Amino acid sequence: MNEQLAKTVAAEVQKFKPLITEYCRLESVAAQKRMMSETADWVENLLKETGFETRQLVVEGAPNYVYGELSGQSDFTLLLYNHYDVQPEAPIELWESPPFEVTEKDGKLVARGICDNKAELISRICAIRAIQAAQGAFPFNLKWIIEGEEEIGSTHFDAMTRQYGDLLKTDGALWEGGGFNEKGQAHIGLGFRGLLYVEYSVEAMARDAHSGGAHLLPSAAWRLVKALASLKDDEGKVLIPGFYDDVRQPTEAEKEIFRQNVDLEQEGRMKAMYGIDSFLHNRSGFELEVSVFEPTANIAGVLTGYTEPGVKTVLPGQAMAKMDFRLVPEQRPDDILAKLKAHLTAQGFTDVHVEKLGGGDPVVTPLAGPFIQKMAQICQDFTGQPPKFGPLGGGTLPLLGAMKNNVGVLGISTSGNPAYYASGAHAPNEHIRVRDIARAIEFNVFMFTQLGELNA
Amino acid sequence: MNEQLAKTVAAEVQKFKPLITEYCRLESVAAQKRMMSETADWVENLLKETGFETRQLVVEGAPNYVYGELSGQSDFTLLLYNHYDVQPEAPIELWESPPFEVTEKDGKLVARGICDNKAELISRICAIRAIQAAQGAFPFNLKWIIEGEEEIGSTHFDAMTRQYGDLLKTDGALWEGGGFNEKGQAHIGLGFRGLLYVEYSVEAMARDAHSGGAHLLPSAAWRLVKALASLKDDEGKVLIPGFYDDVRQPTEAEKEIFRQNVDLEQEGRMKAMYGIDSFLHNRSGFELEVSVFEPTANIAGVLTGYTEPGVKTVLPGQAMAKMDFRLVPEQRPDDILAKLKAHLTAQGFTDVHVEKLGGGDPVVTPLAGPFIQKMAQICQDFTGQPPKFGPLGGGTLPLLGAMKNNVGVLGISTSGNPAYYASGAHAPNEHIRVRDIARAIEFNVFMFTQLGELNA
Repeated sequence: MNEQLAKTVAAEVQKFKPLITEYCRLESVAAQKRMMSETADWVENLLKETGFETRQLVVEGAPNYVYGELSGQSDFTLLLYNHYDVQPEAPIELWESPPFEVTEKDGKLVARGICDNKAELISRICAIRAIQAAQGAFPFNLKWIIEGEEEIGSTHFDAMTRQYGDLLKTDGALWEGGGFNEKGQAHIGLGFRGLLYVEYSVEAMARDAHSGGAHLLPSAAWRLVKALASLKDDEGKVLIPGFYDDVRQPTEAEKEIFRQNVDLEQEGRMKAMYGIDSFLHNRSGFELEVSVFEPTANIAGVLTGYTEPGVKTVLPGQAMAKMDFRLVPEQRPDDILAKLKAHLTAQGFTDVHVEKLGGGDPVVTPLAGPFIQKMAQICQDFTGQPPKFGPLGGGTLPLLGAMKNNVGVLGISTSGNPAYYASGAHAPNEHIRVRDIARAIEFNVFMFTQLGELNA
Repeated sequence: MNEQLAKTVAAEVQKFKPLITEYCRLESVAAQKRMMSETADWVENLLKETGFETRQLVVEGAPNYVYGELSGQSDFTLLLYNHYDVQPEAPIELWESPPFEVTEKDGKLVARGICDNKAELISRICAIRAIQAAQGAFPFNLKWIIEGEEEIGSTHFDAMTRQYGDLLKTDGALWEGGGFNEKGQAHIGLGFRGLLYVEYSVEAMARDAHSGGAHLLPSAAWRLVKALASLKDDEGKVLIPGFYDDVRQPTEAEKEIFRQNVDLEQEGRMKAMYGIDSFLHNRSGFELEVSVFEPTANIAGVLTGYTEPGVKTVLPGQAMAKMDFRLVPEQRPDDILAKLKAHLTAQGFTDVHVEKLGGGDPVVTPLAGPFIQKMAQICQDFTGQPPKFGPLGGGTLPLLGAMKNNVGVLGISTSGNPAYYASGAHAPNEHIRVRDIARAIEFNVFMFTQLGELNA
């Protein structure tokens, strides 16, 4: 990095905290549709102030998508993706500071949405501005799409790409990413699992009853518990007929990456963080790494009856649960939904109503290709060590399926976000470390200057 | 009823409303420990003014018990039980008048605690005073115990009977009761099921995780759902080994009562109220009546993870549930608790913590014996039809076990309370009908005068 650029980068690092503080104050909880248009306006304005031509993409039923274009010196075009929405702050009582007020404590900046994913957008902004300040122009063309529904499953992203797909055609794409790992390695994520998110509801009676009638009256709580229990055996295998039909095994190349990725120290840190003695099925090493190619059936929430302190002898008339299935190649959410419904019907749970709340295809980008190879070289040069490839992230980016199917663009995620393994995305006291901020911005600056060498 | 008594009864009926108004103004909410000592003092004074020798029984941690004795003309001694505490008035917005101000509307007196159980105490007072006014003395001996914790499970009743049991020894006892049914029949309740109330908690991780880690990390939600599901088979049979060991079958006499109690119209009203097409196992008639002799395992509440609207992909670190078991003769709560814990351990659920929050023995008073037989005759003579016996109520009166085990007194509940099937105990706009007041007082007068014929 030349002296001029080093200076402008240092100046932008100083501007990070005021910007992220303003951004996090916008309570953009998608699940509750809080402050969505204010946040979209704020983000659009930020891009505009950075030289982007901007507009908001309107899709019926969705908070507006912020879109911006910045012309640069080469004909290579990169798509950036971020989301301006955040998870709900509940449970509020576990927060040690106000969730929407960035609070610095013990070298950390704490706020809802800071690591997921507001800090990455601000890091990218700071990097772009530093390059512009030092060099006048940007080295290549940028397109930027920022949505407001990622945390509720990118519900309208498919519709958006059908409507506006032409705007998004590029030579490569960077999705939302993480930070460097504890060894200082950069990450290149090649794909994510898919998702089927459902809500179950049971209405066994029109009203709750006194539990003295439990020998007479149907229980919504028992119906739901039995329906949920029917979905998995005691070893954790999913019992929905056909659930595993379309699961492909990892390739030899993917397995080789998993072998390289084994990190027992990282396993130890994760165990300490979650306060557990061992991972599921007592797995470790390669076995643990490769298990991401197994689909999951997770209970995200259950509520029925009386759950406050003390005794209430109530027989619940109603019960609800939420569940997410993480899908692996080549499972598809609507196929799994149909199989789930068929299973419940076959088991006699016709009283358990299933509603799909979200979904997304699993997508894996192939390792070959000039964009991925260039990014690997950039990561190597910046960190002095090979990047850590992630063939398949455990989570989901529902937009990947839409981008692949409707736009024809595949992309990756990488390390331009000042997050780390214990940032606590989705959890109370979500935070980033202050010491990671400069490095994230510097990586983005280095990456952008290098990507200018690519051709369209 | 002779003319003199009829006159004094009519005079007391007029005094009912001012008395109940004063009593209901005392906001004796046990769950919130509101005005407990003021209410105890008021009740003690009422008994004193009625000729009782009174005292307050002090038990550490409990609101004082009001106790009174009244000597009469025969050597027969009857124990009366009531409670001066009431349920919280929440949800306040559903009340159509101030909850603690008796309000007369459409032939009803509305107030929190009026039917459960303040009106019964006032009816008994009015009856005793009418008899005293007409005849000078009371026909037999009364003891009266009035507690302030019934609505929170009679928490200290066992301790009270261990400390003061000698005071409570009598030849018969009347617990809190209801009104006449819609056919005009009196009720004689011979007992109630017992109770074991537990709370389960699972802490699988020190914190919630992103559900993208569901292939690696343990789930408190799944552990709890699987543990609950292990307790019952698909037909509703409880799978805890030894659970049914001490269940006795109903006697032929009890079965005969259930046969007499079959009421298809009442079944229809219940089905309409709960919006159900059929009762559990499609039962009706005798089969439905007698099923109260089956113990239950009811899920009173479950809470884990995210249960607000929309999508949150969380892997819950913690989960909790509440369950009540209604126990039948001769099951015992601590025995069932031990068997429940042994079952969970045997099934590998050592991570599911079980805490006992409440309990009580099932108690059934035998039909034979002069007190019950006399009461049946009294009900027959007063109403012109046989009483409706309830061999075993579906709910629980935790004090029954303490009275049986520590004092050696069995009792019944009957129809001296001016309540009816829609009085709405525990609900907003709790009320009694004005037209039921005189009949309740007259029944108590008739009952007391007849019981004087019994011997100790």
